[in-house]
Amino acid sequence: MGDFKQWKVFVLRLGHRPERDKRITTHVFLVARAFGAHGAFYSGQRDKKVETSVKKVVETWGGPFTLEFIKDWVKKIKQWQKDGGEIIHLTMYGLPLNEVIQKIRESNKDKLIIVGGTKVPKVVYELADWNVSVTLQPHSEVGALSVFLHELYMGHELTKKFKDAKIKIIPQARGKKVVKI
Amino acid sequence: MGDFKQWKVFVLRLGHRPERDKRITTHVFLVARAFGAHGAFYSGQRDKKVETSVKKVVETWGGPFTLEFIKDWVKKIKQWQKDGGEIIHLTMYGLPLNEVIQKIRESNKDKLIIVGGTKVPKVVYELADWNVSVTLQPHSEVGALSVFLHELYMGHELTKKFKDAKIKIIPQARGKKVVKI
Repeated sequence: MGDFKQWKVFVLRLGHRPERDKRITTHVFLVARAFGAHGAFYSGQRDKKVETSVKKVVETWGGPFTLEFIKDWVKKIKQWQKDGGEIIHLTMYGLPLNEVIQKIRESNKDKLIIVGGTKVPKVVYELADWNVSVTLQPHSEVGALSVFLHELYMGHELTKKFKDAKIKIIPQARGKKVVKI
Repeated sequence: MGDFKQWKVFVLRLGHRPERDKRITTHVFLVARAFGAHGAFYSGQRDKKVETSVKKVVETWGGPFTLEFIKDWVKKIKQWQKDGGEIIHLTMYGLPLNEVIQKIRESNKDKLIIVGGTKVPKVVYELADWNVSVTLQPHSEVGALSVFLHELYMGHELTKKFKDAKIKIIPQARGKKVVKI
């Protein structure tokens, strides 16, 4: 994704609860990786199972993609901005994607994309450089993140090459073809 | 979404298991609705909780969007094709989205989009008119469906108006604004 190398993209998943969110949070991270993000952070409760699943995917399908649990996410946000990066909070209440995506793409700042769960603290809306809505309808943080990244990278993420992958898929009209690398 | 009125889009979620899939399946349906599908079907085990969640969203945020449990999904697929519709199966092993989306968009056939869980029976690959991959990476049926619909509708779904909505969001740079209609 040559043209986009000027910035890095990370995802911050807020308030993970292992029992309830296990699969959704895993989907958030796998979407982050597959759609071109460089890594992810999460807050809430630490969940080794989720970390292991993501690690296995990176080992098999390639990276780089990092995952890190953080306790103090407000500090993380403030530090990100202090370091020159910007915060993009995906929320159904924010400004429509199509109205802001070009400005976000053209800014040279590293991007930290925040996806919450059901209840996002007010401070996130206030600290964010951008509150962005992907449709003005209730749906899914997984859906919002994937379409946001797809627009951010203008579809170039669909053909991204991953480093140190052990296997890859050869696309087929029917059936499955996986080859070792 | 005026230009796209020639066809209808439905989603078929295969093999739902209430305990394990509850939230992912709900996200699949909410993404289907928010990104312009007219309704969804699901197979596996019937789950009244998921049906109630989706029904509440439609009552509050508008529709039309139907949801129906079906026992015999192979029959459904075959009937869909007999009625002149086409089947699109989203799978990481299929042909890349960008290579096929234009043909799918230009065909006048009603579209039934199949999203599976972990293990999709071989017959789905064989019956499908299109096996389509959204990235060749493991990620999420929620992510795949949202990006597929976003491309199918060329972004027009982002500003879709829903009928009989009781509330709607007024986009804000910061904070939340919801108004009654």
